[in-house]
Amino acid sequence: MTTITSLQNPRVKDAVRLRNRRHREKVGRIVIDGARELIRAISAGVRLVDVFVCRSLCKGDDANRVLGMLPTSGAEVLEVAEAVLEKVAFGGRAEGMVGIAEMPAARIEGIKLPLNPLVAVLEGVEKPGNIGAVLRSADAAGLSALIVADARTDLYNPNAIRASLGTIFTVPVAAATTSETSAWLRCRGLNILAARVDGSIPYTAADFRGPTAIVLGSEAAGLTEAWRGANVSAVRLPMRGTADSLNVSATAAVLFYEALRQRTTPDP
Amino acid sequence: MTTITSLQNPRVKDAVRLRNRRHREKVGRIVIDGARELIRAISAGVRLVDVFVCRSLCKGDDANRVLGMLPTSGAEVLEVAEAVLEKVAFGGRAEGMVGIAEMPAARIEGIKLPLNPLVAVLEGVEKPGNIGAVLRSADAAGLSALIVADARTDLYNPNAIRASLGTIFTVPVAAATTSETSAWLRCRGLNILAARVDGSIPYTAADFRGPTAIVLGSEAAGLTEAWRGANVSAVRLPMRGTADSLNVSATAAVLFYEALRQRTTPDP
Repeated sequence: MTTITSLQNPRVKDAVRLRNRRHREKVGRIVIDGARELIRAISAGVRLVDVFVCRSLCKGDDANRVLGMLPTSGAEVLEVAEAVLEKVAFGGRAEGMVGIAEMPAARIEGIKLPLNPLVAVLEGVEKPGNIGAVLRSADAAGLSALIVADARTDLYNPNAIRASLGTIFTVPVAAATTSETSAWLRCRGLNILAARVDGSIPYTAADFRGPTAIVLGSEAAGLTEAWRGANVSAVRLPMRGTADSLNVSATAAVLFYEALRQRTTPDP
Repeated sequence: MTTITSLQNPRVKDAVRLRNRRHREKVGRIVIDGARELIRAISAGVRLVDVFVCRSLCKGDDANRVLGMLPTSGAEVLEVAEAVLEKVAFGGRAEGMVGIAEMPAARIEGIKLPLNPLVAVLEGVEKPGNIGAVLRSADAAGLSALIVADARTDLYNPNAIRASLGTIFTVPVAAATTSETSAWLRCRGLNILAARVDGSIPYTAADFRGPTAIVLGSEAAGLTEAWRGANVSAVRLPMRGTADSLNVSATAAVLFYEALRQRTTPDP
């Protein structure tokens, strides 16, 4: 097998072009950077197309595990020089392997809910890193799904994938408009708890035990007016300090784990 | 008042040099970037030395509030051109004002605890952004103090200040070694709860109601062996997903708010 050393190689140039959101959406492909991320993608059945591998940068158990999974993954393995891998890698943390995969559909209609679902909705999110951070907490707390509504970034932004540590492939996710999301939740009879700094119900007094959606807004703008009215309860976290809000990933973690606590603790 | 337009101005060059940690520590000065951050610093009594102001970039109520506070702050106000402000500002989000201040002492001996304290310890932290994120949650949940132990970054790194939204000046903070921190906590009779992925006690079964220290490790390495043994309980968050850990700021938020919940809910 020959090693690609030229930054001008057409496959390398195609991969670099995927840093651009419009290009990702046009060709329907995504960039998966890192060994843990690739393991979770492959295990979840994401269709890998190409994987750039630089053996000299591959270190650790996770990288070895990916190398073992690649032959049966259907992906073409491209051996590349360090400079090429660094060019293809999105962030600064090149771990020796970068995958190109088909973008999962991530349609809200594709989400299958369990009997007593706990869903998170993230509205108007701007930073891909926030999607990733919220996904890690959603994964850890065992949520049924995460929906990004009216997002101002793309769900499969390489930074979202990276910040999620690949849990973006294991937690059921979808991108939709706010109105689609709201209709979908109501149609399924979920109790909607909207996190607002001026919410009327302390979050510990809210009931997360039945089918529930936890709705979170962007840090800059909060939630839109779509999340008011009948069947929506506005919950708040106590704010004891000088600042008037938490970051969205901290708020998400607190609410997800309060839901888990209520769902696993026997009634008093 | 003349406006500084030259990037070669000695005051400008002095400020730029403060991007370097060693230089900050040598001269004992810090960089405070942003209006909210400056309000919280001034209100907390941090001694401002110089404030670079670019009027054309100053927007919003917070900036106006700072402009009103500056005449009595003791700081010298330096009007600068946009290019100069952008040079002095640390991140990309120049908000029209950057302050240079004396570095607060942040000694553990200087922390005064209330009767029933709730203290957080962050050991071995590498990323300044994590200090800032944990401080925001510590502020919101009303913690008594945050101690960074054996940190691998400086407490007053400009990114820590920025990520904290200035709460680094309002929450009592200190930097110390792990052994100093452990001795200080024990001497004050605090019950130590160490967050470990393999902790034996589910965090909801731990008792946060008395004088308590919540100890968190770095994401890469976890906590050192110093946080084992008598008087230390290892607590864990349930992990229901495919990943085996949460990020440290999410773990911190969940534990801080569980403590607040236990401390404000009447006994069952």
